[in-house]
Formats: sequence, C-alpha cells, structure tokens
Amino acid sequence: MKEKKLDWFFKPRSIAVVGASEAPGKLSAIIMDSLLTSGFKGRVYPVNPKHKSVMSLECYPAIEDIEGGVDLAVFAVPAPLTPGLIKRAGGKLKGGIIVSGGFAEGGSEAGRALQEELKEIVKDGGPRLIGPNCMGVYDSISKVDTFFISKERIKRPKKGSISILTQSGSFALTAMDELASEGIGVARLVSYGNKVDVNESDCLDFLAKDPATKAVLLYIEAIDEGRRFVESAAACAAKKPVMAVKMGRRAEGASAALSHTGAMAGRYEVYRAAFKKANVIELEGYEEFIDGCRAFTMQDMAEGPRVLIITDGGGIGVAIADACTNSGLAVAGLTEEKKQALKAGFPPYFTIENPMDLTGSVTDELFAAALEKSMEGSGFDIAIVAPLWGPPNITDRLPELLAEKAKKIGKPVLVCTPGGNYTRRKKKLFEKRGLPVFSTPESCVRAASVLSGKKAAGR
Amino acid sequence: MKEKKLDWFFKPRSIAVVGASEAPGKLSAIIMDSLLTSGFKGRVYPVNPKHKSVMSLECYPAIEDIEGGVDLAVFAVPAPLTPGLIKRAGGKLKGGIIVSGGFAEGGSEAGRALQEELKEIVKDGGPRLIGPNCMGVYDSISKVDTFFISKERIKRPKKGSISILTQSGSFALTAMDELASEGIGVARLVSYGNKVDVNESDCLDFLAKDPATKAVLLYIEAIDEGRRFVESAAACAAKKPVMAVKMGRRAEGASAALSHTGAMAGRYEVYRAAFKKANVIELEGYEEFIDGCRAFTMQDMAEGPRVLIITDGGGIGVAIADACTNSGLAVAGLTEEKKQALKAGFPPYFTIENPMDLTGSVTDELFAAALEKSMEGSGFDIAIVAPLWGPPNITDRLPELLAEKAKKIGKPVLVCTPGGNYTRRKKKLFEKRGLPVFSTPESCVRAASVLSGKKAAGR
Repeated sequence: MKEKKLDWFFKPRSIAVVGASEAPGKLSAIIMDSLLTSGFKGRVYPVNPKHKSVMSLECYPAIEDIEGGVDLAVFAVPAPLTPGLIKRAGGKLKGGIIVSGGFAEGGSEAGRALQEELKEIVKDGGPRLIGPNCMGVYDSISKVDTFFISKERIKRPKKGSISILTQSGSFALTAMDELASEGIGVARLVSYGNKVDVNESDCLDFLAKDPATKAVLLYIEAIDEGRRFVESAAACAAKKPVMAVKMGRRAEGASAALSHTGAMAGRYEVYRAAFKKANVIELEGYEEFIDGCRAFTMQDMAEGPRVLIITDGGGIGVAIADACTNSGLAVAGLTEEKKQALKAGFPPYFTIENPMDLTGSVTDELFAAALEKSMEGSGFDIAIVAPLWGPPNITDRLPELLAEKAKKIGKPVLVCTPGGNYTRRKKKLFEKRGLPVFSTPESCVRAASVLSGKKAAGR
Repeated sequence: MKEKKLDWFFKPRSIAVVGASEAPGKLSAIIMDSLLTSGFKGRVYPVNPKHKSVMSLECYPAIEDIEGGVDLAVFAVPAPLTPGLIKRAGGKLKGGIIVSGGFAEGGSEAGRALQEELKEIVKDGGPRLIGPNCMGVYDSISKVDTFFISKERIKRPKKGSISILTQSGSFALTAMDELASEGIGVARLVSYGNKVDVNESDCLDFLAKDPATKAVLLYIEAIDEGRRFVESAAACAAKKPVMAVKMGRRAEGASAALSHTGAMAGRYEVYRAAFKKANVIELEGYEEFIDGCRAFTMQDMAEGPRVLIITDGGGIGVAIADACTNSGLAVAGLTEEKKQALKAGFPPYFTIENPMDLTGSVTDELFAAALEKSMEGSGFDIAIVAPLWGPPNITDRLPELLAEKAKKIGKPVLVCTPGGNYTRRKKKLFEKRGLPVFSTPESCVRAASVLSGKKAAGR
C-alpha cells in the first residue's frame, strides 16, 4: 500500500516547514507565506531551533517536538543537515519534500553520498520523500504549495482538471506561470527533481485514481524504472489521457539533462517505444505541452484525426490546412451530397470546401450555421473554426453562437484567431464559453493533433 | 523601365479614391479616412459621380476630371464597373489598386472575363495595376494605406525595416495586426491578390533597390512566372535577406489556395527548388513568418548555425537544445580551454557546458559576464540567452547589461523568456534595447534558424 501514502503530499492535515524563517526572500518564508495565505486548511508548524516564533506561530526546535507529529514536512535547509533531521523525526513524519539542492545533481562525491543516505532512510521504512532539488507540490484543491518563488514573479494557476508531473523545477515554474496567466487551471502539479523516492510512476498511480484529474501531462528527462513506468502509465492511460514530452532527446540535450537533475537521459528511441506501449501521447516540446494543456482543459479526446476547417479569411484556412497535413491530420473534402446541401443554404460566394471560406461578408449567424451543418453526421472528428475579426459583421455574439453549436455537435471544436490587440481581447469571449482558443494556425493544429491522440501520424 | 513605375504605388503625390463615400464602414470611407488622418502628405481626391463632396473634399465625377490627373487611384467599386473606369481615365492615371473582388477568384465566367479585360488594359499601355481582390499597399514611410479594415480592428505597424509581400489579403491583415501589436515595425507591405499585373517579382525588383527595406518576407500561394521570380528573388537576395513561406503545399491546401485567389498552386517541390536556386530562405508557416519578422527587425544574418545557450533554468536550456537539434542547428560543446577559463571566473555551482546553466543563484552581472566570455572568439554564431525571472537576484538591470554585451559581441543574440504576466512585462525591457525576445523555446529557435539562413539543415 505504498502508493496510498502519497495522500500525505496532496491532502496533509499538517505541514512542518523545516528551516522556517521570516527573512523576506528566504525559501522557507515564501513557502510559509503561501501556506498561511492561500487557503490551506491544515495546520502549519514552523520548525527552526533558532526561533521562538515565525510569522506569529510558535516555532518548534525539531519535527519530533511537535505533539502528534505531522503529515508532511518541507525541508528548506542545507543538504548536509537534511538526512539527520529526517532520521531524528522518525515515526513523527509521514511525507517529506526536500526542496534544497546540493545532492547528486551537482556531481560531487559529497552530494551523491547525501542522496544515498536519503535512499537508505526510505528503504528503512522512513517517510516517503519528494525531491531533493525540486519545487515539490502545488495542489489547487488542498492549496499545498511548496514552490519557493513568490507569487509576484510566478503566478499560481486556478483550480482545473489537468495534472502535471515534471522532473525539472524550472519547467514546472515556467509552465505554471504561463498557464496561470493564460487562465488555464491545474489540479495538481508535482516537481520531483532527483527522485530519491517518489517518481513519475508513483504519481501516475496516484493520479489514475484521483477524481480531480481528468488528464495527465508529464515532462520527462529520464525514467529510472522503465518497466514500472510502462505499467503505471498504461494503467493511468486506460482511465484518462496521459501525455508526455521527453526532453534531452539528442546528444547535446542529454548532457544538459544529466547535469541538472543528476539522472541519465537514456536513448530517445527507448522512450518513444515505452510511450507507445503505454498508450502515452508523445508531445514534441514546450509549445505542444502548453497547447495540450489548453486543449484538454476544455475538450475531450477526439475520435479520430479528420479535421474540418471553417474560416472567413482564405489565407488562414490554407495555413491551417497545411499545418494539419504536416502534423498527419486529415483534411478530407466534403462529400458531394453535403456540399450540395450546404450550398443550398448559403450565399453563392461562400467556398464550400475544406477549408470552408465564408469570406469577409460573413455574419455571426452564418458562421455558426456553417459549423453546425458541416459537422453533422460522421464525416469529421474535430472542427477548427478560424474567425478573423476584420470582417465588419463579426461581433461579440459570435463566441456565444459557436459555443452553442459546439455543445450540440459533441465533438472537439477549437478556435484559431490570430491577430493583434482587438483580436486578443475577443479571445477571452471564447474561453469564457469553454471554447479553447489559439493564436496561430500551428498552435491550434498542435492541440488538434494532441486531442486526436496523434493517431493519424502513426506515432 | 516598367519597374520604375512601381514608385507610384509607394510614393504617390496624389491618390484618387474611386467610389468614395462617407458612409461609415464602407471600404472607400475607411481608405479615405486612413489617407486623410495617418500622415499621407500628397493630395487625396474623392471620385464618385453621386457626390459633390466627401469628407469636406471636393468630389470628382471621374478620374479624368481631375486636372493634371493622379499618380494612384484606388478602385473600391463593383468589379463590372472597374475596367471601364480605368480605360476612361486613360493617361491621367499612372497606377491603380483594385481592392474589389468579383474577378477570377470566384471561378465564374463573368469574373474571369473581367480579369482578362484588366490584363488587356495593362498590355495596351494602361496604368500598372495591383489586384484585383487585394488589400493593396500599406507604406509606413509615405503613409499610403489602402487596407480597407478600420484601425480599431486591425492595427497598423510602426515604421520598420522589413517589407512584406503577400498574395493573401487576410494573411496581410493578420500579420500586420500581429506585428503592430507586438511593436514590430514594417517598411512596406503589399497584398496583390489576383496579380493581374504587378506580382511578387515586380515588387522584389522594387524592394531590392529600396533603401528603407533591410529584409523581405513573402507569403506565396502560387507564382506565375517561375523563371522571372528566380531572377528577381536572387537579385534581391544578393542585396538583403529574402524569406518566403509557400502556402497551399499539400493537395488539400492547394485546392483552397486555388479557390481564394484564382491562381493554381503548383507542386511544392518545384517551389522549394526555386527558393534554393534564388537563395531564398524558406519559412515553414505563420509562426516562423512572425518569428522571422521579429528576428530581422533587430538582428542581422548569422554567419553560421552554431548556437550557444545560456540559462538560469536547466529545464528550459534542455528544451532549447532539443529544439535547436530538431531544427538542424548545432549545439556544440565548449572547448576544454574555454571551459577552464570560464570555470575560473564563476561560482562552482554554474554548469559550464552548452547549454550553460547559471542556476537560480545567478545575478544580472554574472549573466552578462557569462554571455560575453562564452561568445568570445570564433566558437559560436548565435547566442540564445534564456533568463527565467523566478531567481530572486535577476532584476530590471539584466536587459541593459545583456544588450551592452550583445553590442560588443557583434553576433545575433536572442532572448527566450517564457512565462506569465511578470515575465511578459519584462520582455519589453529587452526589446527597447534592441534584443528580440521570444516566449517559447521553439519560437526562439525558429528565429535562430531563420537568422542562420537554415544553413545547417541543408535546406
């Protein structure tokens, strides 16, 4: 029942911050502040033999001095002190997050020895550990937040339905900040760094059963237990979409990954085979990761790779079609029957093909009607609607009308609306109504490709 | 001396707006308003037999009634009226821009006949024509602006050093709006639609000699005169970088391109061969187009494809390295000599490799020093600096210090700084100082790849 213990990381009743301090800018001060101000409902215990109180809370000399112990402790103290503190806490600690660096990632003999010491503690029945050299956990539901960068610099995402697992702390920060600023929510986010104990497989086991998580995205540099990963990922993927980006793919990238989390980034081909076996959708990089987050926040998997494109600007339709073809998505034509039916209902200057060009004379109502009628039946799996806001009869009603039709259709509908300030302001209208909106043809197509499980490309 | 006549489109002393009207939202009213309020220094003549005056200017019944004629006329009247109006103007008109649709692009017999009529007029020594079915010209220097979408919906870019040629009007609008909102300037922008006369080759001949244009970007659906294009593009590319994106590449895209500008989109391979022969850098799509604009606005061509990556967040460095390798750029290691020299001057926890990871403990000064020292000598052609703003010692001084070093280095320096609102506000500090800044690893690498002329990939 090892996996069950992960509950302590996401739903702790109490958290000790070891190395607690009030000094502005200190890691522990940022973590304390987050836990005290962001809505975490459990108890918070500052731990530091140097202080009597921290942020108006009684400060304990050590974890073992806290009556009844704690579910979770965050260690923000120098690496050499950490193993001893965990040992001394003994049975009074259920889970630990070690945010400090100074372990195997630096490549020094001393760092490696300290990491080995942590491993021994876990083996000997000690608490489960996340890290070291990591950001830890951000949980939008329980409000556990051990990310030691101030909210001013790195925004926290709102409550959402996707969960993210990442080895790289800087990637975790960047992605969470980007998602938060884009209004995309997250359920749980784990940065596990050097993975002395808890790794991606443990987290996948937890997330597979987590009702708050509807889709999982992984940022992977290296996996240690390959067979277990395939099992855990496949079990999770059987319940909800699992996506992964493998970083440090090529020789150059691999050496960088080695130095910064102390793990060996193995051969890329092995990872691809593992992803395939486990039904994990492979993502290409940062952009596809963010686009995938946006897509799965508002839409479900598509049944296939057949895309219909509707636009009021011919050139953008062509650009989307090209990007689809490059990504292995199918941009098949309309059946003769459907063409005739559509032509009967629309002005003669509409181009009734795929892409469908409704021209600058389009109205909100005609745009919505074109979406509904062309997606009727079984010809297409995904619709990409690309309204440019130049045409004078496109108004703020459009997002509402398109969202209504999207609901009726019951298949993923993505919006692609590139442009400047005016267009960017309108994007919010779509997202408010649950339609994911993208700023370039390529980003929208990346999302479509991910939603289709990249089926068409044979990947 | 045909090419010389293009001067009338970019530097006219006078412009007639044919079909002039005050009715809000009318094409001609938007064009009149732009010409009267955006700083165009020449004379503007409304032409419309139905009005005595338009926007407080005397309105003429026809072009031929304007004493001394005009350099340029914009035709915003129904297609069937256009050929007759041009013929009647005779020698009183030097250049015409036909923004109206209703010609060959619709595929109708009548439309095709009208377009043929325009061709005959040009052949018979009539004025040179841009269009029909186009947005015409936006010139940030002379302030000619025939784009008939209001500035509220589509922003106009500031004066800049790149010029853009595009067949698709919607692409022209979207790109200009995006560039304007991103603060990227443009010298001249031409949307030539059906190309009854002036085509990409004519424009390339003009831009080759245009001192205001430092780089040219083309959006191509189809080229009619292949041999001439290669000649003109090669001649222009000998003087300044020329980049092109070919849209409608695949079968599906091709059929869409056919319907919307009435031109046949030929086989993609033929275009690639033509680009290669003419030393035209091929762009992949919309994103690379915009990234290329940003890169060439602030930087010159790189001498080669060897990229050095410096970051304070390991994971982002790895992502950039991976994207470089995917794009055919080289992320070679540092020489042993250089490594030793760098290690001597920096804290031991810096990872002195490529990517170089300065960790979360970095300061502004150390970041700048790392850039200068690692780019010394002949090892690298392009530097990608990727500061994440989480680390507490990174301040607003960083952009200034990096820009100073970039000037000394004399090679392209690109900034990659992904993240949310805090980071996005900081981006402006880099661009103010002439450092192009990108929001994702992939977009920064697209720019690096374009600046290197995509040399490494053998494309």
